Amino acid sequence: MNMCLDCIPCFVRQAVDAVRLSGAPEEEQNRLMQRILQWLADIDLRLPPPAASQRIHRRLRALLPTDDPYFASKKHHNDLAARLVPSIRRRIAASHDPLAMAVRYAITGNIIDLGAKNNVGFGEIYSELQSAPMQPVFGDLNVFKEKLLRAQTILYLADNAGEIFFDRLLIEQLVHAKVTLAVRGAPVLNDATRSDARQARIDEIAQIIDNGSDAPGTLLDDCTEDFRRRFDEADLIIAKGQGNYESLSEAHREVFFLFRTKCPVISRHSGFSMGTYVAANRQSEPHTPGGGA
Amino acid sequence: MNMCLDCIPCFVRQAVDAVRLSGAPEEEQNRLMQRILQWLADIDLRLPPPAASQRIHRRLRALLPTDDPYFASKKHHNDLAARLVPSIRRRIAASHDPLAMAVRYAITGNIIDLGAKNNVGFGEIYSELQSAPMQPVFGDLNVFKEKLLRAQTILYLADNAGEIFFDRLLIEQLVHAKVTLAVRGAPVLNDATRSDARQARIDEIAQIIDNGSDAPGTLLDDCTEDFRRRFDEADLIIAKGQGNYESLSEAHREVFFLFRTKCPVISRHSGFSMGTYVAANRQSEPHTPGGGA
Repeated sequence: MNMCLDCIPCFVRQAVDAVRLSGAPEEEQNRLMQRILQWLADIDLRLPPPAASQRIHRRLRALLPTDDPYFASKKHHNDLAARLVPSIRRRIAASHDPLAMAVRYAITGNIIDLGAKNNVGFGEIYSELQSAPMQPVFGDLNVFKEKLLRAQTILYLADNAGEIFFDRLLIEQLVHAKVTLAVRGAPVLNDATRSDARQARIDEIAQIIDNGSDAPGTLLDDCTEDFRRRFDEADLIIAKGQGNYESLSEAHREVFFLFRTKCPVISRHSGFSMGTYVAANRQSEPHTPGGGA
Repeated sequence: MNMCLDCIPCFVRQAVDAVRLSGAPEEEQNRLMQRILQWLADIDLRLPPPAASQRIHRRLRALLPTDDPYFASKKHHNDLAARLVPSIRRRIAASHDPLAMAVRYAITGNIIDLGAKNNVGFGEIYSELQSAPMQPVFGDLNVFKEKLLRAQTILYLADNAGEIFFDRLLIEQLVHAKVTLAVRGAPVLNDATRSDARQARIDEIAQIIDNGSDAPGTLLDDCTEDFRRRFDEADLIIAKGQGNYESLSEAHREVFFLFRTKCPVISRHSGFSMGTYVAANRQSEPHTPGGGA
């Protein structure tokens, strides 16, 4: 999908966050923001949002005193998630449909998204996890479950740090398949990289690869040849989060998107209301909740 | 108060709204946004937010096909409020402390603020009005009520269209005093002008003046000499909304601010939590709810 005017305030907010998190002195922060606004004035509004965001954050990192301003946030969310997952794992095991329940919790984890808002605290994550079992999943949960169970090879595109611990819980349900987890090729926003996947110990149950790109999404042309081959060959692609949806909503093959709608632009484009749990491919009807547990 | 980096995404969102509401063709909207981003890159970050906003919207209006992009929104909110106030007036009259209750509803009306967010619908206003009687008012409601009852001349600085109908309900309680209602000198955002004050029929119970300025706040240096004289001479100043707080928080005389905290910058500066009902002067302790009904 292409960006629209509503994406611009969000890019500006992301830039303010990154500049703040970098620890640069205040005067320098102001100068940096002025430069970012100048760049934004020249940006091509026909790009998908992750391509615009990639350019902004790549340039920012070149100027900031750190090339990973979200490092501490990512560690914080990984630590938080690590404390929460053992009890969630038990809840999934006790459910009458563990696979559907694991899908729900994987979607819940998608609220840990510092691209969509600038702070996600323990209270918010905890209360979301309490409501997760009752959340209707919109899209095609039953079709998704069938495809999950039939697939022999699954390529799972991760989204954010912290969230990736909840992705692990879903991958734990997929013992019948060979799962490959793909993370970003370099730090951007709070998106998960290899280090986050290892912190979630996903290497014990799946192969971890990176896509070679520093976009907060999956821009296929910007990914490695190896990644693109796996993308073409996997029986099933699971794409987590809004950034992957923004970059793959018109992909040349079927992709199953799992995300929480957190911005009105995605909500309008996908047809799913704000705040909805979504498990859908391009054929899914947005207006009816899917079946499943 | 001065603006901070967090104000910039909000200015950009306001500009997107104004450009959209103007009805300019899409290609033209994109070009306009690019120009706005260029201006913003040059803006002086030491300005108070309403001064920055004033400059942006003044330049915008010069380029847009309309000099009042919020005209239809203001009419919509005035019509909505006109339908709601008769029942609110009865609730105030039936309260055991009508003055405190009228203050609460005047603060509730402050959610109709298209500077702070881009859409405020009937459902949101209606549900806020239901909860208004139970809302604790933070600051110094008792001190404010005493000052209201003692004042012989009151200058009431209005904020937004729609909201101004709820201001009328508070002014109706002030029959003992000579009340002057001041509106903006020209359209900016959805801020109330003379036409909105007349739609709320405030001319029947108070004198209406304008401050001569097109800032979404009260920048004294930018107001008429007549306004400044009244500002100095009134026994009591009531300043509605965040824009008036932003521009008068360091004023040379006492001002009583009535607003709902709707943005983290105001919340940090004033010390009142997000979403709080506030009736406070500069001496008020932010962390305890005031007394009153």
